[in-house]
Amino acid sequence: MASPRVSESTLRVRFAETDAQGIVYYANYLVWFEVGRVNYLREVGFDFERRRQEGVTFVIADARCRYRASARFDDPILIRTWISHVKQRSFIFSYQILNQGTGVLLAEGETTQVMLHPDTLKPVSMPDEFRRLLLLEETSAHASEAAG
Amino acid sequence: MASPRVSESTLRVRFAETDAQGIVYYANYLVWFEVGRVNYLREVGFDFERRRQEGVTFVIADARCRYRASARFDDPILIRTWISHVKQRSFIFSYQILNQGTGVLLAEGETTQVMLHPDTLKPVSMPDEFRRLLLLEETSAHASEAAG
Amino acid sequence: MASPRVSESTLRVRFAETDAQGIVYYANYLVWFEVGRVNYLREVGFDFERRRQEGVTFVIADARCRYRASARFDDPILIRTWISHVKQRSFIFSYQILNQGTGVLLAEGETTQVMLHPDTLKPVSMPDEFRRLLLLEETSAHASEAAG
Amino acid sequence: MASPRVSESTLRVRFAETDAQGIVYYANYLVWFEVGRVNYLREVGFDFERRRQEGVTFVIADARCRYRASARFDDPILIRTWISHVKQRSFIFSYQILNQGTGVLLAEGETTQVMLHPDTLKPVSMPDEFRRLLLLEETSAHASEAAG
Repeated sequence: MASPRVSESTLRVRFAETDAQGIVYYANYLVWFEVGRVNYLREVGFDFERRRQEGVTFVIADARCRYRASARFDDPILIRTWISHVKQRSFIFSYQILNQGTGVLLAEGETTQVMLHPDTLKPVSMPDEFRRLLLLEETSAHASEAAG
Repeated sequence: MASPRVSESTLRVRFAETDAQGIVYYANYLVWFEVGRVNYLREVGFDFERRRQEGVTFVIADARCRYRASARFDDPILIRTWISHVKQRSFIFSYQILNQGTGVLLAEGETTQVMLHPDTLKPVSMPDEFRRLLLLEETSAHASEAAG
Repeated sequence: MASPRVSESTLRVRFAETDAQGIVYYANYLVWFEVGRVNYLREVGFDFERRRQEGVTFVIADARCRYRASARFDDPILIRTWISHVKQRSFIFSYQILNQGTGVLLAEGETTQVMLHPDTLKPVSMPDEFRRLLLLEETSAHASEAAG
Repeated sequence: MASPRVSESTLRVRFAETDAQGIVYYANYLVWFEVGRVNYLREVGFDFERRRQEGVTFVIADARCRYRASARFDDPILIRTWISHVKQRSFIFSYQILNQGTGVLLAEGETTQVMLHPDTLKPVSMPDEFRRLLLLEETSAHASEAAG
């Protein structure tokens, strides 16, 4: 993947997301990873419902976050999301969380998704079309973004 | 209901539940209401799954919380839960949230539950057995608590 | 207040906000109220930090939500926020939560804010300038929105 | 650490913690890690406030969770927490999350804590007494548990 597609999402820190240290509670970065992941999949045209009907879904098998700097209430947040690995039965999303105002890197992390059959919950291989969708490169991705 | 059954639940304030003001974020009191409600229903022997199969479930139609004092990280919390009204198609849970160490009242509130058919989501009347279960009085309730 | 200013905020339902019933967990509507409230205050130019230095802040004394219909994962949400009452030592925010795609009303509610001194936590009266800011009418509010 | 002290915490899955897949939302395992961590520190007699006054606190620099099986509403959960590494300026908590009823391992993970000065937020070395407290072995730990 010489030029992985990167999806950018933005949000404002909610007061609900802060803790008594005055900063964003550490588990909420995984919620922001989800925001980035869902936007990525929307941008490449991924249809959860259609995939389920075709007998393939995925669950998160591993999540990791490295915390670099703190975020505070009302900070503007930028989430950068891309796919860093695609294997036979799993793929990895990578994330960077930045303060959009200052450009400071707040956190980075990865989640590993494993392919399953939605009913049997048994491992399945990734359909070719699914793989093509995930690996959609920068050029064509811009088009789908414009359409969204 | 001369002597309503009161269910008592206890928990410790999680750091995740605090906010940048150093106190428990206001929406989390509704989560604690849920903790009290679920314990109440467990104590009287309510079986969600069986009720669903019998064609009756409920959803929350109204929630209210009045905030009296603040809770902080690691405070011991006592949730008192009882049923304050039972009507044909709805019933009301009332709650008090206290600091278990000091006895200070932190919040009080109510949630209104409306009976629905789990599939059609249309209003249904409360089955008599369901009503008897909810209105279980103090004496018999103690027995079921001991059994749990 | 013949023509109260209404602030509109939008968001997408996060997977984190849903529950095992497949719908948005009831406490999360209070988080969305916060999103609406914070945007309202930003639009009228309210500066939390400056107000604290002037010796006035507020806390939520009462929150209520009436649930009308369900929201699901990825639904586009519209939050309408306005000030419905201003008294000497408190004011009320009112909210409507709608599905932005269908226009269906999902929930409505209110929060009562009480004025306090940030250090002593004793009740204080609302400064005149604060009151003028809150009651900012539609015409002038548009200007501040453009500036934001 | 031939025989690390293991702290055990228990809780019930809250409805608030589930998602539309019917299982516990993945970020909530980090909240449960916090529950285990706080109980561990309480059991060994760690006093956050006193440590802050002595000029030492810690923040989480890295969190990781591997998901093995799903948890559902009302499942009884067991959290096992121990310290797996202590270095000059950081230490690692390890966690196992199990279904207490079935004994099934649901998730395991680690968090890395880095020592900081609470005011300057600059790295500091771990005081010897702090280190002794963290490494408290099984025998003496039982005593402090009984006292708590």
